[in-house]
Amino acid sequence: MTDLGPGAEFDAIRELVARWGPQARGIGDDAAVLDVPRGDQLVASTDSAVEGRHFRRAWLTPREIGYRAVTAALSDLAAMAAAPIGVLVALAVPSSWRTDLSGIADGIGDAVAAADTVIVGGNLSDASELSITTTVLGHARAPLTRSGARAGDLVYVTGALGAVGGALAALQGGATLSESQRGRFVRPQARIREARWLANAGASAAIDISDGLAADLTHVAFASGVAIEVDLTAIPVSPGADARAALSSGEEYELAITAPRAIDAAAFVARFGLPLTLIGRVADGEPGLTVRDQASRVTVRSGHDHFSA
Amino acid sequence: MTDLGPGAEFDAIRELVARWGPQARGIGDDAAVLDVPRGDQLVASTDSAVEGRHFRRAWLTPREIGYRAVTAALSDLAAMAAAPIGVLVALAVPSSWRTDLSGIADGIGDAVAAADTVIVGGNLSDASELSITTTVLGHARAPLTRSGARAGDLVYVTGALGAVGGALAALQGGATLSESQRGRFVRPQARIREARWLANAGASAAIDISDGLAADLTHVAFASGVAIEVDLTAIPVSPGADARAALSSGEEYELAITAPRAIDAAAFVARFGLPLTLIGRVADGEPGLTVRDQASRVTVRSGHDHFSA
Repeated sequence: MTDLGPGAEFDAIRELVARWGPQARGIGDDAAVLDVPRGDQLVASTDSAVEGRHFRRAWLTPREIGYRAVTAALSDLAAMAAAPIGVLVALAVPSSWRTDLSGIADGIGDAVAAADTVIVGGNLSDASELSITTTVLGHARAPLTRSGARAGDLVYVTGALGAVGGALAALQGGATLSESQRGRFVRPQARIREARWLANAGASAAIDISDGLAADLTHVAFASGVAIEVDLTAIPVSPGADARAALSSGEEYELAITAPRAIDAAAFVARFGLPLTLIGRVADGEPGLTVRDQASRVTVRSGHDHFSA
Repeated sequence: MTDLGPGAEFDAIRELVARWGPQARGIGDDAAVLDVPRGDQLVASTDSAVEGRHFRRAWLTPREIGYRAVTAALSDLAAMAAAPIGVLVALAVPSSWRTDLSGIADGIGDAVAAADTVIVGGNLSDASELSITTTVLGHARAPLTRSGARAGDLVYVTGALGAVGGALAALQGGATLSESQRGRFVRPQARIREARWLANAGASAAIDISDGLAADLTHVAFASGVAIEVDLTAIPVSPGADARAALSSGEEYELAITAPRAIDAAAFVARFGLPLTLIGRVADGEPGLTVRDQASRVTVRSGHDHFSA
């Protein structure tokens, strides 16, 4: 770390950097200097978590807020099957949150540790509401995108879905979460290693489930110009949730991928202790998503002008 | 641009991307995919402009707010003598600002055009106050830092200083700005080409003047572990300002650099139409800044425990 020089404005930054220790690198210059492995491309994304919009103070500890904000951003690297280079964190912190800053910093540290990466830059501002804007930098030889799905591809999803939507609905209704509900809500994982494994196994397109499986597969369908068909009964569902909840549950940060050939789900489970489930296929046709139940009735149909569940 | 798919949440992003046209590239995937020239390093920085903290709504048009926010971030690439690869812009926009979003977008477009770069990603959130967090990505073979100054180096500054501080003081006092005051305040330039020229000419350290010449040279002194001595009367002063104002005026986005040999200021002026002025030198000694007037009295002395002007 470069010496930041005198001045009260740097005291808070110094405190953060000291708290992060070796998790923060090269802070103190006007910009971070980083290496992208030769032959790889740079992958970059930015994501904001704003108090009252993306979370409520009563729902989460400061550490959980920091962790979730940075994990959500890192999940975009997973969606591209990129390995992280580092993150930059812009914190806008009201005075009422100032004493919680070290907790937020610890959560940020937890998230970068979970992704085997470091904090390479940031910004600290005063504000009237807490917001955390995280920019993630990564690298990949052949990044996955939303636009690589082709007719005939299979559609897979990692993990099980629905718990986060259930937890959010409970919180919004004023309920208290069970331990297991709470764990899944406050400790999502960015599936970075899983995504790189899936890319190596032949995945053609990927997205992380942030808006909900149905919405995110619709993004893939439009970006790739294909029709995606999903079997409602095949969707892996979290304990206590149902398939319809699993379709709409956002902020899951699991991965949905397409692949031209079957992927060895048993090898994936053995490697990551996480299910990989075949849930549908890609077809020619008007871009959009169709979800069918066992009676082959259409449950969700999304297209250009309509989106209904 | 990849199709973003259906959903009301994307309408505003679509509008922005349509407004930017070819200035926005690759928006729509989970992350941008970019190339760093072989042999160069990646240079990255993030910077926030928050309403009520960094600007007031009454002072600036939406277009000027967008321009200044992104230019301030790009100036950090200049400080490193890096060439831009692209910017990511996270906008937090209250409903009261929604109709001004196209103006803000135009200002962002102006700033990236001035730096010959593009918008490669972003984020749009609701919020209770406007904030613009810009992440700049650049590349450089040999980035300049704050820590390269050595005893015996000369200290230079680009442009003339003091006008921005004067404009800010006038605005805070409720005054209306003259046309020339206003121009300098609302249209700062990120000195990217100038910085790369100076790096090629042998500069050893650089910083952009965001906190004020005295504060920023103190940062260089601490980062480099050197004493910096500046001649007050040598500082280039904006029309209507004085040398003391020039010392403290922030958000100028001019460059202060050090160099082991004299730099051809005439060639710099001929190339950029901008003065390059020798204002001091680097010496051994306790890290800090000393500014002397003609009578050799100390005007500013900054060290570890004190900072006074």
